[in-house]
Amino acid sequence: MKTVDLIIHARWLVPVLPKNTVLEFHSIVVHQGQILALLPQDKVKDSYTASTEQYYNDHCLMPGLINNHTHAAMSLLRGLSDDLPLMTWLNDNIWPAEEKWVSDSFVEAGSELAIAEMIRGGTTCFNDMYFFPDATARVVDKSGIRANLGMIVIDFPSAWAASPEEYMHKGQLLHDHYRHHARITTSYAPHAPYTVADNTLNAIMTNAEELDVTIHMHIHETSGEISQSIENYGMRPLARLKQIGLLSPRLSAVHMTQLTDEEITWCSDTGVNVIHCPGSNLKLATGFTPISALNNSGVNISIGTDGAASNNALDMFSEIKQTALLAKAVAQDASSVPAHTALEMATINAAKALGLDNMIGSLEVGKMADMIAINFDEIETQPCYDTISQLVYATGRDKVTDVWVAGIQLMKERQLTTMNTTKIIKDVQHWGNKIRPKNS
Amino acid sequence: MKTVDLIIHARWLVPVLPKNTVLEFHSIVVHQGQILALLPQDKVKDSYTASTEQYYNDHCLMPGLINNHTHAAMSLLRGLSDDLPLMTWLNDNIWPAEEKWVSDSFVEAGSELAIAEMIRGGTTCFNDMYFFPDATARVVDKSGIRANLGMIVIDFPSAWAASPEEYMHKGQLLHDHYRHHARITTSYAPHAPYTVADNTLNAIMTNAEELDVTIHMHIHETSGEISQSIENYGMRPLARLKQIGLLSPRLSAVHMTQLTDEEITWCSDTGVNVIHCPGSNLKLATGFTPISALNNSGVNISIGTDGAASNNALDMFSEIKQTALLAKAVAQDASSVPAHTALEMATINAAKALGLDNMIGSLEVGKMADMIAINFDEIETQPCYDTISQLVYATGRDKVTDVWVAGIQLMKERQLTTMNTTKIIKDVQHWGNKIRPKNS
Repeated sequence: MKTVDLIIHARWLVPVLPKNTVLEFHSIVVHQGQILALLPQDKVKDSYTASTEQYYNDHCLMPGLINNHTHAAMSLLRGLSDDLPLMTWLNDNIWPAEEKWVSDSFVEAGSELAIAEMIRGGTTCFNDMYFFPDATARVVDKSGIRANLGMIVIDFPSAWAASPEEYMHKGQLLHDHYRHHARITTSYAPHAPYTVADNTLNAIMTNAEELDVTIHMHIHETSGEISQSIENYGMRPLARLKQIGLLSPRLSAVHMTQLTDEEITWCSDTGVNVIHCPGSNLKLATGFTPISALNNSGVNISIGTDGAASNNALDMFSEIKQTALLAKAVAQDASSVPAHTALEMATINAAKALGLDNMIGSLEVGKMADMIAINFDEIETQPCYDTISQLVYATGRDKVTDVWVAGIQLMKERQLTTMNTTKIIKDVQHWGNKIRPKNS
Repeated sequence: MKTVDLIIHARWLVPVLPKNTVLEFHSIVVHQGQILALLPQDKVKDSYTASTEQYYNDHCLMPGLINNHTHAAMSLLRGLSDDLPLMTWLNDNIWPAEEKWVSDSFVEAGSELAIAEMIRGGTTCFNDMYFFPDATARVVDKSGIRANLGMIVIDFPSAWAASPEEYMHKGQLLHDHYRHHARITTSYAPHAPYTVADNTLNAIMTNAEELDVTIHMHIHETSGEISQSIENYGMRPLARLKQIGLLSPRLSAVHMTQLTDEEITWCSDTGVNVIHCPGSNLKLATGFTPISALNNSGVNISIGTDGAASNNALDMFSEIKQTALLAKAVAQDASSVPAHTALEMATINAAKALGLDNMIGSLEVGKMADMIAINFDEIETQPCYDTISQLVYATGRDKVTDVWVAGIQLMKERQLTTMNTTKIIKDVQHWGNKIRPKNS
């Protein structure tokens, strides 16, 4: 008989791996942040006793969701400008607002808001790309969530850094500072092919190998990006990145709305990961990522919300459903991306892209206890014929009641335990009043 | 000074008409179910005193949503079969399940579930098409929601009727029974061009004129429907309906995923209403309705969830966002279907299609007080730069706290006042246990 930190008894348990599995009336045994065992409820008491035991008799337990593409701090700009063409939105609205407002304290307040929203919606890990990542890191550290933070690099000066060299240097400092942190990892985050020059990309490639970190980059978001690259470089962006040598399992390519069959083959041959942001792609009308074709080619696909300025919610349950629905419509095949495949994209596939699949992404013995409980005892989830269908097509983020990262409970019966929502809302309203255009 | 039934003070008020309007710190005055006045909060007390006064200091008040295409009772089949091609789904799963289970009591239980879900999500009126509409009518009557119920007609026999003549006869009885009901209207609901013969459609057209009711029909849902019609009738379904004379403002055409430019012109010239079901169309991979093109041609577009067997949620907030996003992507124009246009589709446009725009669809003096309050004082809706953007892109059905139909409060602080959710869940689970395939 072993005494452990935590035993959770759940009506349903969807571990994600093994694939397409639903365990009923099982218990998960957690000790020192890790999953020690998954056992039928009537067997667990033969082997374990726990200091904390929790019953979820109407709930489904599953791995925490991984939001694999965010600009967390941009939550402060949620709804500031909508329904505009991408370039007007970026050039005349978002970039000027960022130039005016982005600072260490802006990023801290925006990250607080985003992380609170993500935990409330069942996200336990996010993959961020933004200025002042050290401000985001402080909030990640305090809040207990897990994150991979981008060492952002862009050819334009910002309040965060004046030159590619300074971005690289500050990124390195971030990496060094958090290299032993249990919940924070870093990756290079060159913004996009059209905003980062070849020599910088070469330096990033070398350093990424040396530090053994991944690379997170917007690629092929718009058709304009493709034609501009053909004009400037005589080739499409992905061909240019291939020439540089960037296509590898280290690379996570965000968006990828414009892809030829040959480019899909490059991705599957080189192990490039694709991060799909369906809500953002639709809202900015940037194109339809060929998810079904990529999936059939064996490309590792994960899902992100993008920033709240182009979505406008950090709602992974919504993006999971959107991914499954949109993939079917684009492929003209209602059987493509079935429910469980969409769940994998929001969990284990994202963990793989981050190089963290030995730690997170599924509820398996030896992995960290990053978990969420979803209440199925509500009108919206009745009747329940298929637990996984229910998770993907019927439930929503509001049904997430409890959230743990590394066995620490960050939300309990919908109350955040590590963040003060009243204070966050007050701070954000203060920022909103400053940022709000005077005529609106 | 006039004494009225109800005064509601709201932080924000989005009346939908006038278009794109946000009133701040206004009050809505309700008497005998109708809206008597909309006034600034500091003015209302000069003219009115109320037996009930309610304060919504953090909320946005707007018209109740109209779910303009449902098969309410199919909520009992939610998640029974997903991720299948449309024809496999229909022929091998849904139709056999319906043949086995549909009855008066099935429809009553399914309607209870659907109506509870709809009220909880801010829907105050729905436009239904299903067997045993009299069972649905009983639940509508008791629950206090508003509905337009289809006098369904289909060439196949069902537990509800054996022949087109019997469907017509039973429809007429339904119409007669509810003709003076304050919240129930009826319309003819011929299932689809491929399931209803010309002579029946002719009879429906004549009767619809006589009874002055609308016609609600699935049209151009799939490409297969088009090719089958060309084979059987030598023309596309819409051309056949045009020949019969059905194209008029009386007709609401659901789905319309396959449309030529000429057919779009027919719709705008004849006043045909289009009902868009984005979630269902994506899930069944039936095609992309050209919403932006239809909207630019002046066609009246409204939104429906379709049944829970093909969605799997009766979540109008999700469908409103989906409509705005998908229209942009299909038109390749991020400025198409801006937030307020999407809200109109879920309110006033739906009321027009139902012929009820003199009564519902906007918060205007003289209309019925069908209203919902949405809480903006949460993490997910911060900061608030644009109230209408927040409603469409950031909020969700879980933020609806209070719902009124004709001034009667059907949900109060998220508790239904006219329905017993515990009992509904119990009944539905009983049905689920009967329906669930024995091997799952």
